[in-house]
Amino acid sequence: MATTSLTLDEIYDLVYGALRNAGSNDENACAVSRTVTHAERDGSHSHGLFRVAGYVNSLKSGKVDGNADPEIKKVSPSVIRVDAKNGHAPLALERATSALAELATAQGIAACAIVRSHHFAALWPETEALAEKGLVALTGVNYKNWVAPAGGSEPIFGTNPLSFAWPRPSKTPLVFDMATAAMAMGDIQIAARDGKQVPLGTGLNGEGEPTTDPSQIANGGILLPFGGYKGSAIALMVELMASSMVGEAFSYETALSDNDDGGPAAGGQFLLAISPAILSGNPHWATHSEELLAKLENMEGVRLPGARRHQNRLDTGPRDVNSELVETVRNLAS
Amino acid sequence: MATTSLTLDEIYDLVYGALRNAGSNDENACAVSRTVTHAERDGSHSHGLFRVAGYVNSLKSGKVDGNADPEIKKVSPSVIRVDAKNGHAPLALERATSALAELATAQGIAACAIVRSHHFAALWPETEALAEKGLVALTGVNYKNWVAPAGGSEPIFGTNPLSFAWPRPSKTPLVFDMATAAMAMGDIQIAARDGKQVPLGTGLNGEGEPTTDPSQIANGGILLPFGGYKGSAIALMVELMASSMVGEAFSYETALSDNDDGGPAAGGQFLLAISPAILSGNPHWATHSEELLAKLENMEGVRLPGARRHQNRLDTGPRDVNSELVETVRNLAS
Repeated sequence: MATTSLTLDEIYDLVYGALRNAGSNDENACAVSRTVTHAERDGSHSHGLFRVAGYVNSLKSGKVDGNADPEIKKVSPSVIRVDAKNGHAPLALERATSALAELATAQGIAACAIVRSHHFAALWPETEALAEKGLVALTGVNYKNWVAPAGGSEPIFGTNPLSFAWPRPSKTPLVFDMATAAMAMGDIQIAARDGKQVPLGTGLNGEGEPTTDPSQIANGGILLPFGGYKGSAIALMVELMASSMVGEAFSYETALSDNDDGGPAAGGQFLLAISPAILSGNPHWATHSEELLAKLENMEGVRLPGARRHQNRLDTGPRDVNSELVETVRNLAS
Repeated sequence: MATTSLTLDEIYDLVYGALRNAGSNDENACAVSRTVTHAERDGSHSHGLFRVAGYVNSLKSGKVDGNADPEIKKVSPSVIRVDAKNGHAPLALERATSALAELATAQGIAACAIVRSHHFAALWPETEALAEKGLVALTGVNYKNWVAPAGGSEPIFGTNPLSFAWPRPSKTPLVFDMATAAMAMGDIQIAARDGKQVPLGTGLNGEGEPTTDPSQIANGGILLPFGGYKGSAIALMVELMASSMVGEAFSYETALSDNDDGGPAAGGQFLLAISPAILSGNPHWATHSEELLAKLENMEGVRLPGARRHQNRLDTGPRDVNSELVETVRNLAS
C-alpha cells in the first residue's frame, strides 16, 4: 500500500478544508476536524480520514446541517438533554461533556440524553473527556441494523459500541471502546478494502451462512454480536439505552429513515458520568485503583484497554496515510 | 438424581429455620429466605438452596453478623451510600433499592454505593426491584479473584456478574444477569458435583492449561472471561465500579481477607437507576421499547434475557429439589 506522510496539523487542515467546502461553519468544522485528527493521531484509522468522504456526503445531501447549533437543556436535577439539531456529533459532544462533567461533579452522578445527532466517530473522545475531569464515564450509540441477536439471523441491532473510561489522575484514562458486534463495520469495510479475511463468527453472508469474507458481510450480510448470548445481551442493553431511554430511534428505524448517502445517520446517544470521589467517600480512591491497574500492566500477555492508542498518541510526528485516501480528501478540500 | 418435592412455602420455611438456627435475626432471615426462595421459584438453582449451607457457615464462623442493621446515608444530591454492617446482602439491598428508586425518580438518575455487604445471590432481585418501579437498572459486584484477564493466566477478577433490567409496564422486566466470567463459579461447582464437562474456553487448570473438567477449574484452576478481550474489558469495568468506585476491596484483596468458611466474603456493589421517562422526555417511551422487544420475542431462535426465569415463575406449584440438598438444609433447620 502506497502511503503519504502527513503531519497532524496537515491532517487537521485537510479535514477542515473538506468540511468547509461542503458547507460546515467554522465551529462544526473545527469540532469534526479535531475528532478525525485525534483518531489518526491515536492510530484509530477506521475513524480517521477514512470517514471524511462520509462526513462530506452527509453535508452535500442536506441530511446533516453544517451550521447546527446544539442546544442543552437541564430537564431534572441530574439529567441534561442535548438536541444536536441534526449536526455532526462532535460539536454537540464537546458541549455535552462539558455540561455533564459539571453536573456530575455536583450531583455525584448525572446523565445526558443526546438526540438528532449524526455520530460517525469513535466513542472514546467523549468518555476520555469526562475521565480527564475525574469522572467514571459510560456511553453508547446505536446505528443501522446490521447485527443479528444471538440465535437469530435477522439484523436488529446496530454495531452498538459501548465505551467506558476510568480516570487516572496525571495519566491518560483507562478507556475501552468496543463494538458489541464481533467487529465494527468500519473495520469490516477496511478489511474488505484491503482484501483480508475476518474470523469465523464475525458474521453471516446474505444467505444467513457463516463466512470469513468481509465483503460478503458488508454487502447484504449480517454481523454477529461478540461473545454469543452474553455479548448479545450487552448489544440489547446499548440498543435500549441509546434509543427509547433517550427518546430516539432504534437501529431498524434509523436504517429506514436514512438517505444512504454514505454519511452518518441521525440517532441518539446516552452518556453517564459518575464521581468516584463522592461514591467512594475515599479521597485516595485513585491510589487504590492504580494498584489494580499496575498489576494488570505488569502481567505477561495482558494490555490495558486503550493503552496502544495512548502509546501512539505520544508520537507527535507525521503519520503515514494510505495515499489513495489522502488524494480523496485533498480533492474534497481543494 | 433423587428429588424431593417442596412447595415454595416449604422452601422458604426451611431456609428461614436454618438461618434462625445459625443466629440470624428475623428481619435478616426473612430477607435471605425471600432471595433463596425466589431463586428456586425461577429455576435459578445455583443461587437457591445450594447456597444455604454457605449462608449458615458464614454466620457460625462469625464472619457475617446475623443481626446487622444496614444504614443508608445520602452523600450528595444523587448518591446514597449503604453500609451493610457485615450482614448478608438481601436486607441491605431491600432498603437500598427502595431508597434508590425514590431518589432516581426525583433526580432522573441516582447511584448507590454498598459496602461491607456479603453477597451470595443472583443480581436480578435488585435490578428487577428497580425496574418494577419504572427505572432502568444496572448493578455489579466483584468477589474473589478466580478469573484471569484475557491474554493472562493469573487470576485477578472475580466472576464479576453484571445485571441490567429494563422496565416493561404491566409485564415482568427484561433482565440479564450474567457472570463476566465464561461461566459463574456456582455453575462450575454444580457441573463438578454432577460430573459434567464444561466447554473449552471456560477456564484453565492449575497448570494454566485449558480444560473441560469443572472440578479442575474449581480446585486450583482459573476461570476465563466470556468473549475474549471484549468480555475481559467488561469484567475490568465491573471490578473497578464495584470496588474503588464505591470504596471497597478488589477481588484479590477480598480473597486475602476472607476466612474461607464457604460463605460469602465481604465486598462492595454499585447500583445505578435511571428514569427513562425523564431522559426520553417521551411519555410513550415504553410503547416504543415494546416494539423492539416484540420483534425479538417473535424472531426464530431468539429468547429475551430473563424470559425462561419469568416463565418458571408462573408455576406456583411445588419444586423438585435434589434430595441430598434438601436433607442438608433440613438438618440445618432442625
